[in-house]
Order: sequence, then C-alpha cells, then structure tokens
Amino acid sequence: MTGAEIILETAADAGVEICFANPGTTELPLIAALDRVKSIRPVLGLFEGVCTGAADGYARMKQKPALTLLHLGPGLANGIANLHNAKRAQSPMLNIIGQHATWHINADPPLNMDIASLARTVSDWCKQSESVEALSRDTAEGLAASLYGQISTLIVPADHQWTEYKSDKITLPEFTFDKADQGVIANARKLLEKAKKPALILGGRALRKPGLTAAAEIQAKTGCDLLMITFPAYFDSGEGLPILKRIPYFPGQAQTLLDNYDTLILAGAKEPVAFFGYPNGKSSLLNDQQHRFRIDTGKQDVAAILEELAWALDAVAGKSNPTLAKYTLPKLPSGKLNAEKICATIAALQPEHCIVVDEGILSTIPYYSYAPFLKPYSQLNLTGGAIGQGMPLALGAALAYPDKKVINIEADGSAMYTVQALWSQAREKVDVITVICSNRKYFIIELECMIAGYNSLGSEARALMNLSNPVLNWVALSRGMGVPAASVTTAEELIREFEVALKESGPHLIEAILE
Amino acid sequence: MTGAEIILETAADAGVEICFANPGTTELPLIAALDRVKSIRPVLGLFEGVCTGAADGYARMKQKPALTLLHLGPGLANGIANLHNAKRAQSPMLNIIGQHATWHINADPPLNMDIASLARTVSDWCKQSESVEALSRDTAEGLAASLYGQISTLIVPADHQWTEYKSDKITLPEFTFDKADQGVIANARKLLEKAKKPALILGGRALRKPGLTAAAEIQAKTGCDLLMITFPAYFDSGEGLPILKRIPYFPGQAQTLLDNYDTLILAGAKEPVAFFGYPNGKSSLLNDQQHRFRIDTGKQDVAAILEELAWALDAVAGKSNPTLAKYTLPKLPSGKLNAEKICATIAALQPEHCIVVDEGILSTIPYYSYAPFLKPYSQLNLTGGAIGQGMPLALGAALAYPDKKVINIEADGSAMYTVQALWSQAREKVDVITVICSNRKYFIIELECMIAGYNSLGSEARALMNLSNPVLNWVALSRGMGVPAASVTTAEELIREFEVALKESGPHLIEAILE
Repeated sequence: MTGAEIILETAADAGVEICFANPGTTELPLIAALDRVKSIRPVLGLFEGVCTGAADGYARMKQKPALTLLHLGPGLANGIANLHNAKRAQSPMLNIIGQHATWHINADPPLNMDIASLARTVSDWCKQSESVEALSRDTAEGLAASLYGQISTLIVPADHQWTEYKSDKITLPEFTFDKADQGVIANARKLLEKAKKPALILGGRALRKPGLTAAAEIQAKTGCDLLMITFPAYFDSGEGLPILKRIPYFPGQAQTLLDNYDTLILAGAKEPVAFFGYPNGKSSLLNDQQHRFRIDTGKQDVAAILEELAWALDAVAGKSNPTLAKYTLPKLPSGKLNAEKICATIAALQPEHCIVVDEGILSTIPYYSYAPFLKPYSQLNLTGGAIGQGMPLALGAALAYPDKKVINIEADGSAMYTVQALWSQAREKVDVITVICSNRKYFIIELECMIAGYNSLGSEARALMNLSNPVLNWVALSRGMGVPAASVTTAEELIREFEVALKESGPHLIEAILE
Repeated sequence: MTGAEIILETAADAGVEICFANPGTTELPLIAALDRVKSIRPVLGLFEGVCTGAADGYARMKQKPALTLLHLGPGLANGIANLHNAKRAQSPMLNIIGQHATWHINADPPLNMDIASLARTVSDWCKQSESVEALSRDTAEGLAASLYGQISTLIVPADHQWTEYKSDKITLPEFTFDKADQGVIANARKLLEKAKKPALILGGRALRKPGLTAAAEIQAKTGCDLLMITFPAYFDSGEGLPILKRIPYFPGQAQTLLDNYDTLILAGAKEPVAFFGYPNGKSSLLNDQQHRFRIDTGKQDVAAILEELAWALDAVAGKSNPTLAKYTLPKLPSGKLNAEKICATIAALQPEHCIVVDEGILSTIPYYSYAPFLKPYSQLNLTGGAIGQGMPLALGAALAYPDKKVINIEADGSAMYTVQALWSQAREKVDVITVICSNRKYFIIELECMIAGYNSLGSEARALMNLSNPVLNWVALSRGMGVPAASVTTAEELIREFEVALKESGPHLIEAILE
C-alpha cells in the first residue's frame, strides 16, 4: 500500500465517500489510489473553486466531510475563495494538496509556492506530512478537526504519496462535541426570564430541525422572537417549523430590527456586525444597552444546548404550544419578469424536500417572505461574501442527495466566477435547476455606490458595474458545457421552463432576463 | 482629493496607463477615482485571474506595470494563480487590494481574511497602508519595487481611500538598475575562453532583441551554443536573430541536451531544474563536473551585462559575424488536424510583428522548430505552471499594442480555468485570435502517468484526465461571451478560418479539434 492509498483508506474507513478533484503531476499516486479505494467517488472539476464549493455544498447537506484533491499552491489558490465561504459556513472538509517531492522543494521549480501560508488563511487545521508512516494519523487528525465544522488541509509531498506504507495500521478520527455548560444554560434562562423583549439569534446547527424545534418551544414559553443570521450556511424551512426573521443585509435595516430587543441570546451565531464599514458607520449592530449572551462555543452542539435550555425553561414539547408556520401556496405571477416574480415562481413551484441554493444577491431578497410558508425544504446560502459559490454548492448538494431536486437561484455576475461548475453538473447528471437572475450588472455595487453617496459617477466607473457590453448569452454558455438551457423574459415562460426542468432529470439552466 | 485619488494620481504621474479591475464595496472610492484620473484606463474582468493575467501580459509587452484592483482577500485569492505566473515571469505589477475600514477589521465581518499573508505568497513587495498621508509614498514605493520585475501589492483600507488627502504632494517612484560587476564579467569571459563546449542559458531580459544581439556576438566569437530556458516570459524571435535551442520540458531530454556542455553561463536565468521530481529522479539538470556561472543579479539589466561581456570578449558588431536565422516559410499542411499541423498552419500564416501567446502545453511543442525562422515576432509563455494564463495574457498583450495581432495557441483544459477572459476580449474589441487545441483531455497528466509507470490505470483515474464527457463546445462558449467562433477538424478549414480572423478586427476563436 502506498502513502497515497493509506490516506484514502483512512478517509474511507472514517466514512468519507467523495473527493472533488483537480489533480496534477504532484498528485499522480493519489490519482492511482482512487482506482484502488473504490468507496471514495472522484468528481472532476475543471477549476478548483468548483471542487471546494462542491465539497462545501456536500458537507452542509451531509454534515460530514468530503475530500478535495488540489494541485500545489496555484491549485489551492484557485480554491481559496470558496474555502473562505466554507470556513464561514463551518463546513467540515479535508483538502489534500500535493506538494513537490521533499528533496525537490529547495530547487524551487516553477510551480513552487509557500503552500502552507496559503492554506492557513482558510484552514483551521493545517499540516504538511512529515513521513509516509504518519499519513494515516495525519489524515485522521485532519478529519477529526473538520468534524467540529472546520476546514482541514493536509499537504502531502509526492514522495510520501508514492512511498510504500509498510504497516497496515489505520488510525480513525476521534471526535466528540464538548458537553453543554450548565452554568451557561442557567444564565441564558435567567436572561430570558428577566428580559422585556428578548430574541434568539440562530446560526449554525441551530438552524436545523432539532435546533429550530427547541427554539420554537423556547419562543412559546418566553415570548422571544427568533432571528436568523443574515447569511446562514444551511437552514431547514417550511411548514411545521417556527417563523424566523432574517437579519437584513443593509446595516440600517438590521439595526432597526435589532433595536427592538433588550436581550439577544446567540445560538450558533456571533454578535451581528455590519457586512461593510461605511463612512460614519459602525461595526456592531447592537447598542451598549442591549444584553447579549452566547450559549455555545464552536466545539459544542448548539442544537443540544437549545434542547437543554428548553428543558431548563420547562418549555418542552407537549407543555408549550409553539407557533409554527402553515403552508401557503404563493400566487403564480404573470407578465415581464422582475426579481419579485422570479422568487414567487420558484416558491410556488418548488417541490417538497428540495434544496434551494441562494446566490441571487439582491434578486432573492423577496424570496425570504415566502420561505417559512412553503413545504419543508433545505436552504443553503452564500456565507463569506466571496461570490461564485452557488453553482459549485448546488453540485455538491445534489451529489449528497441524488433523490432531491436542487434549485440554484443565481446572480449572473456571481455565476461567472465559477461557471465551470456547469460542466461538472452535466458530467455527473445531477438534478440541479439553475435560474440565472440576469440583470446584466453588478447591481449590489451600484446600490452600495448610491448608499455611499456616489450618485453622479461617470462612464468609466459605471462601466465597472455593467455586464451588458457584450451581453452574456447564458443559453450558449450552458449548452457549451452540456447543460440544456432556455432563456425567458416573462413569468409565463419561466413557469413553463421551470415545470419542464422539474419533470426531467439531469441539470437544467434557465436564464431569467430582468428588465 | 481623496486617498483613492492620490493613489491613482501617483500611478498616473509615474506613467501607469491601465488598471485591470474587479472591484467591490471596499473599493468604491477607487471606482469613483477612476472617473477623475482619466489617463488610467479601467478594464473590467469578470474573474480576478483574468485581471492579474492581463496585467502580466501587458507588463511583458510594455515592460512597465499595470495596476490591478481587487476586492479584499477572496478577490486577491482568485488572482493568485496568475500572480504566481507573473512573479515567475518577473513582470512589474502593482495590485491594489481594498481592505475593510481600519475600525471595522476587528469585528471580523464575513469577507474578512488575512489579506497580507495571502498577498505575501506572490508578492515581492507588500504593504498595508497606515494612513491616507502615506498613500502617495506607498504607491510610489510599490511601483519602484515592481520596476525590478517584481510583484507589488498595496492593501488599502476603505477609510484611507475615502479620507481627504490634505496635501497635493505626489511622490514619484525612484528606480535604477544596479550597475554591472566588472569582476563578474571578467570571470565570465575567462570561463568562456577556457571552456571546451560552453553554452549561454538565456532568460528574462536576455531574450529581448538587445540581449539576443549581444548573445549572437558572443556566440560568433566563442562558439558557445545559445539555449533558452524552458518557460520564458517573453522572447523576440524570427529572422535576423540568433537561433536558440529551448531546454526541453521533460527532464531526460533536458539532461541529454545539457550534458553536451562543460560550461554554462546563466544570463537572466536560474540553474535549470526539473519541473517535477519523479521517483528516482533528481532536482538539478546539471552534473557536478559542469561549470555554471550566473552573470547577473535580479536587480541588474542582463541585456546590458551581455553587451559588456561581448565588449570584453572583443566580440562587438562588425568584428564578429554572427549566425542569424533566415526566414523560411513553413509549408501549409492538409488533412485531419494534429498538433503538428496546427503549429505549422499558425507558423505559416502569422503576420510579421505579431504576438504569439503559447499555452498549448503539449500541443505547441512542434511550434518551436518553426519559431526561429519566421518573420520577427514576440512570444509569451506560461511561466509558473499555473494553467489558465493564456487567454488573460493575450488580452493584456493586445491592450498594450492595439496595432499588433495577438495569436493565442491554447490548450482546452488550460483555457477553462480563466474562460471569462473571452468576455473582456469581446468588450475591449482586442485583436486576439485564440486557437483552442481541443484534445479533450488533460494530455500532460496522461503522459506524466505513463512516464511515472502508471500504465494500467482504471476508469476512475482515467476519468480525472478526460474532458470528453460531456464535450466542451468552444464555439458556444465563445459566442456566449461575444467572441465570434468557428470549429475546424482539418488543416484546410483551420487555414480558411485563420485567414478570415486575420483579416477581420476584434477577437476570434477557432476550436481546432484533434483526433
């Protein structure tokens, strides 16, 4: 067994099932090993940001790590933007980066880079293997670290990969969440009981069904509002779950919402801060008078802590009567498309238990008014602000659950960063429907300019936000990578094409042109 | 004048004329400043690797820096692969990276990253501005550092950009090459005179006309061979210049060539090393018996040193009779296409003074047998092995010299990494002809597998090198981004489409399908 094989055998024994790969010559032994370790499925991306984004989408759905396999420093660099998003999403992931043979690094060959420094910018755990004998332990350690919702990166010199691993010992990752702190739970209970107007801010695992169910019981008992962080990695949504308010993106709107509360209990969430700093703006969205209290650390299961808090409040199921969302079928729109009509159409037609991937940026704001009242579904969002996440995320989510439809609502500007994801969607025949909200501009930057007071920008500046010269033909781009596509300008056409895509298997793309 | 404006005013006063940009909200004041500083032309890329690759192409042609304008850590990360190539090319460049407002960084908003650590992996000079007052000096320092053939990166917090710059003082970059070391020249002369079989290995500025002319004189006087590094950033080629042998990519072939020489004089080049380390391979391509001597430091003009060395050898023009290449029109091929026929067609049809950008990987090896014997032209190559460089490089080169035709010979796998470059080519209406050598696989990895002894790989491994499922439709991809395109399978068709593209202005793409 080679070093490369022991890495994959260790990962396979730990339950890893998939590897998103764009390898090169320093990863040849790992390529060969993927032939031998059949329980790990290799998925090729034609750009590394596709691989890291797909691993993130897979992890959010499965709550377990995928591998990525990337080529040296430049390959890792191409994956960093989506690793940044994955880190903010607290997605488990293990990146395997091939490195030059140990004896070759000092020769500084053309592809040589400081891989570890690159990796550390987006990794919670990062190691360069020191010997072939250590590779099983290194892999297990990286996987264990990832299970806390962390990015792990293992850099493996080519000679460690191709050298024979003489033992057959395989180390398994050791992982348990830290236990809840009863003092913290007691404090949270007191704060909630004392508060005039409390809210829970939910993020991370708190936004999955068990956490939401506990939060609903706490709400029923204490009258607190339930808020959702602005950019959650994942949330369960729809009928039977509590109705959450999403903290708005723009700081003014966010503060207006948050000012309602004297007490904010943070569950799987950091204190809310502005996305950007503006002139005369501020960082925190809370004021000095507000109590804020976080009930979990990064190494605890926040859903379990919410359940314990519900018990502590004597707010358990049967005793409380939580307000839960009821299904309301949105009305199908008609006429020329706008963002509101795209959102209404998707909300009205999306099937139960589907997965919605939102990288619509400004175009999907209207969708959130429908989200709580649909049939139960899963939603994945852009977490770290590094655009180009949606299409890879949809690929990974679809591979995690091949029986679910994935609907990716995608901004045209964002889609271009990792457009290569469409090819992998076609290759893997995944059930992804991509709806491109084609407003042909970086609308968010235009809006930020207005907010910042740049109201009379000239042609040079405006050109930097304009994608209409030339127009991107999304039907051609999509078909060029093997994904059937259609272009629509009215709600009626969108409804028709969306229904076709829902009936057929395999990926589809619909370019929805906004006027 | 704002801090953003003083950055651009300083750059403009230093002669900077172009800025390849993909900005966001942390760069709004710089966007607004691009309206005010009219002598710097903003060029939008829809992916940051397009911006950094284009800045590299521009710099190689103009031998002066372009700016890039990138959005925070993730935007920089997307540009790193081509910054790595640019660093290996020793291209001057100044990257301006917007950072969160100084008072907002500690709030760790979603887009926050360790930008400086990222930047340092590909920058020779890197600084985060400390005040608005220092911005002109910082910009000048960064530009001065870049002029030695270095990558400079200036990270500018948003509040420094939007704050008023109270002075009107503009600092200009100070730059001079270090003088030649006469002792080094005397040693090189002695080594050449004493050697039985010497060779000059030329790289960097030594491959431009003045350096080549001096090298030809040295060759005529001493009988040395002239070798070219495997992946030069730029070389002048064609009739009237000396005939160089390119050091082959594969280590075995390279060693066979290099073993011919007892003495190797390095001019603008490092000692040749293997691109990758293989089992039982080695790093250096030279043996212990060979004398090797480098005549320049990174801070000297190697062309001037070669001229001084020619003088020292009494080998100046008029006295020596250098062997120079004569023009030989390649024969036009016919029938089904292969790599050899693509290269012959382009060599036969390319116009005088054109710019050839080679990222054909294995498909362009045959081109090098024609290169010395064509009408004079410029050639740009992949330098750092980070594929996805060709199309951005062609964009930047074409913007540097709008009167020249740019011919980009491009591998299909490599092209996909920065395919967004086609949109910027269409937008800027540049005269670029892209010939996609479509072999529908990562052929280089397949070949490396054979060399490394992986001869019986199974379907999983082989699938990771195969791009035919689905087939990439380059005509659709190209037209989808506004670039007219045609697909060809025979030499006759390639000749016809290439001649059409030569006659018309603006970008064209030809998909050359290899059987």
